[in-house]
Parts: sequence; structure tokens; C-alpha cells
Amino acid sequence: MTTDTNSEKEIVTAAMIVIGDEILSGRTQDKNVAHVALKLSEVGIQLREVRVIPDVESEIIDAVNHCREKYNYVFTSGGIGPTHDDITADSIARTFNVSIDYHPEAMEILTRHYETSGIEFNEARKRMARIPDTATLIDNPVSKAPGFQIGNVFVMAGVPMIMQAMMESILPTLTGGAKMHSRTIGAALPEGKVAKDLGELQVKYPDVSMGSYPYFKQGKVGTNLVLRSIFTDQLNTAHAELMAILEKQGAEILQSE
Amino acid sequence: MTTDTNSEKEIVTAAMIVIGDEILSGRTQDKNVAHVALKLSEVGIQLREVRVIPDVESEIIDAVNHCREKYNYVFTSGGIGPTHDDITADSIARTFNVSIDYHPEAMEILTRHYETSGIEFNEARKRMARIPDTATLIDNPVSKAPGFQIGNVFVMAGVPMIMQAMMESILPTLTGGAKMHSRTIGAALPEGKVAKDLGELQVKYPDVSMGSYPYFKQGKVGTNLVLRSIFTDQLNTAHAELMAILEKQGAEILQSE
Repeated sequence: MTTDTNSEKEIVTAAMIVIGDEILSGRTQDKNVAHVALKLSEVGIQLREVRVIPDVESEIIDAVNHCREKYNYVFTSGGIGPTHDDITADSIARTFNVSIDYHPEAMEILTRHYETSGIEFNEARKRMARIPDTATLIDNPVSKAPGFQIGNVFVMAGVPMIMQAMMESILPTLTGGAKMHSRTIGAALPEGKVAKDLGELQVKYPDVSMGSYPYFKQGKVGTNLVLRSIFTDQLNTAHAELMAILEKQGAEILQSE
Repeated sequence: MTTDTNSEKEIVTAAMIVIGDEILSGRTQDKNVAHVALKLSEVGIQLREVRVIPDVESEIIDAVNHCREKYNYVFTSGGIGPTHDDITADSIARTFNVSIDYHPEAMEILTRHYETSGIEFNEARKRMARIPDTATLIDNPVSKAPGFQIGNVFVMAGVPMIMQAMMESILPTLTGGAKMHSRTIGAALPEGKVAKDLGELQVKYPDVSMGSYPYFKQGKVGTNLVLRSIFTDQLNTAHAELMAILEKQGAEILQSE
């Protein structure tokens, strides 16, 4: 990652914290990280770190404190439902050393929702209206129980459909920086064959990050070469040079975008 | 997670560090975490944390140092190929403050492999034989280039097929502790309806970790209730009580295992 240096464009960074025993047990495959990464990328924010941690208060506090210092934005998913294992809101209040109580607007939203749907608004469900002091609500058009923002930390649900809807609510409020552009070449060759040339190309274009990702598909070896940069001119020049290198090697190009 | 306390059974923990810009960019969906979690679980090792970090030496050193102190085992994936962006081996050598050089056995394995397959064993490919001093090799039956173990850190490839093969090589060498057992009940009810009873059941069985995971499928709301414990008797009793609670509420049971 050399794009931060020698650049007048502003780099805006983010971390994501996935809170959930169910991911760590292997029971559930995370679907939120890739979505958040792509959405942030669209508005010029680079996801730089992901942590998956258990539903344990001290772990949540440590991870959020570390990430909110180090990155411009922090996004969490998971642990804001009505059950006893949903401890994210309380843990975030502790992280910011603020009190937590029933939020009037959240109570109003949930009261209306449960009245309309004819479902009892019981004590457990009222827990979902507990929001740390000074936080602002994040709209949840799917199941109504809001997420919230406090400082540079955005607290979202873990259920992918809800998290994605919350992300849509959040995105227009974020201040992005330089957009990372990406070009990919898929070639039917083992990466070891292009490694030397690619390494030399990387030295020539320090502001273009070059990644090589081999794969095996139906017994055939291939490599995806991914070029990323906030500078489109350098990106396109490097892409053209890499294409020339691959063609000179006689490699079959499966994809170029 | 209350299973650590009041227990004579030994808890063995692990962290996984996914090294790769391609996951953070959202381009590639990680497939390794769930696999490692499930495999470790089979041998009595609990995955407690996952970090996804970029291909940056300082980030690798910080993450590995933190995790190898905190957990019994650390597993990394990614960054051990032949290209310039594969910096994991050098970063791990730096982490352990040891030198790194061509490993005789790794050189022998790769020399034989490339001779047999008629592919040039060029300088880039020789990089894959660079192994930190004092490390031992991890067998790679898929593409031959080995992973390695140093201290309590196991360094594996990022390509899922190779990582899975390496995991099979590693598993018999690990010392597991108490096995975490798990039972799941899927019920056609919103979690808010069972939240109070579930919370009371959690208080009654502190050594059974109870998680509630709501979902929306084809417009219907359901909840998976997951009970986990190293104590099978308590797990089974809690499961039976939870089934009784759900039946009393008239909830349709979709799954119970």
C-alpha cells in the first residue's frame, strides 16, 4: 500500500468490527464484510482492517477503542437485538464512557411499529431502544429497531438484510476521500511465470498497488492480477504495460477490465 | 462465554489472521475462516478472534504478536506465494526476530516438483522456499510450496483448496482441550418473543452459552437458538428446557438438533 505517500489526495480509512460468536464458531459465514468494503469503496473510503470478536464486553471495548483511534470510521455489525446476548449498545456506551437509556425517538419508532403490527412491545423488545447518550439514530427500514452513530463509530445490525439497509442510510452522511480505482486482468498462467515482471512493474509504479491471486478452476491454473490506485492515469498506464508483458509471454487473457 | 470459569476442563483458544488486500477490498469473499473454525472445533480448539489485515509488514507483525501472546494457537492465511506482494514469510521472521533463508527441505520439494512438471524453477518461485529460521514445514499436497510453523503460529496459503489441505496436515499435531458441543433449535417465531425466557435460562445455566440469531426467509421471521457448552449434560438439560419453553409458547419448531 503505497498510495498514502507522495499524494495530495486525501485518504479516508475505515475498520469493521464483526461482533458475533456465530461467525467465530464457523456456524455462520459472514456476508457483511465484502458488502461494507464495496459500499465504502464507492464513496472513497478504504476498509483497512476487519476484526471478528465474540460477544464479550471487554473485547468489544478494546477493539472499538483501538479502531476509532486508528481509522477515520468504524463500522460494527451484530449484537443489537432484544436478547440477553445482544450487548453491543451497552458495550459501546462503556467504550465512550457515556450513560445509556431508552432513547425517546427510538421508543417512538418501536412503539408505532409494534402497535401497527399487533405484536407485543415487551421488555425484551424495549431493550432495542436503549441507545448510548449523545448517539444519533441510524434508520432501519427493514425491522425498525435503529442502529446508532456515536463519534466516528457506526453500530449496525448483524442480519445482512438489515445491515445493508442501514448502510444505505449511512452512506450519504460519510465524507469520502480519494476513490480507489481498480483494474483486473485474468490470465491463464501460473503466477510464478509473471512474478518477476510484475515485481519490476510494481517498483516502476509505486502508487499502483499490484496484487496477484492464483486460482485453480476445473484443474486449470490461472491468476488474477489486480491493479489498484487512486491515480487513474498511472493505473491505466500500468495496466497497458502489464497487458503487453502478458501478451509477450503468450499468456491467454481470460478477462481484462 | 462463561465456559472458562468454574471448569476443570482445559480451554484451548486460537486466533486467525487473514492477510490480504483482496478481502479488504471486497473483491474476494473469505472462505477460510468458517473452515478453520469448524476444523479447530472438531479437535477441541475455540477460535476466539479473527483479524483481516492488509499486506503490510507492520500490520502483520502487530497482529501476530498480539495474537500469539493472547491465544494458544495462531493461524494465518495468505501471502506466501512467489510474487512481490507475498510478504508473510519475511514479516513472520521479523515478528520472531529470526533470520530467513532458503530452507533445504523446501528447496528439495520445489526442485523435484518443478522438474517433474517441466516448469521453470525461477527466482520468483524460489521465494516460496524462503522459510524463517527455526520454523518447521507444513505439507502442501496440492501445489507443493509449503507453509510453516514457528512457535505457536501456523502460516498457511490463502487459496482455499491449498489452505484446507494444509489444515489437514496440521490438525493431528495440535493439542486440543475441552470440545465445545452445540445444539440448535430453529423456531418460527421472532426472537423478541422468547428473549425473556432465554435470558432467564442463560442465568440458570451459566456454563451453556446461549445465542439467538433471527433471520428473514421468504418474508417469514424465524430465529435460530444456539446452545453451546463443553458440558454435554448441562447442554442437553438446557436444550430440553428450551424446547419446553418454545412448545408452551406454541412456536412451530422447524429444526432441533
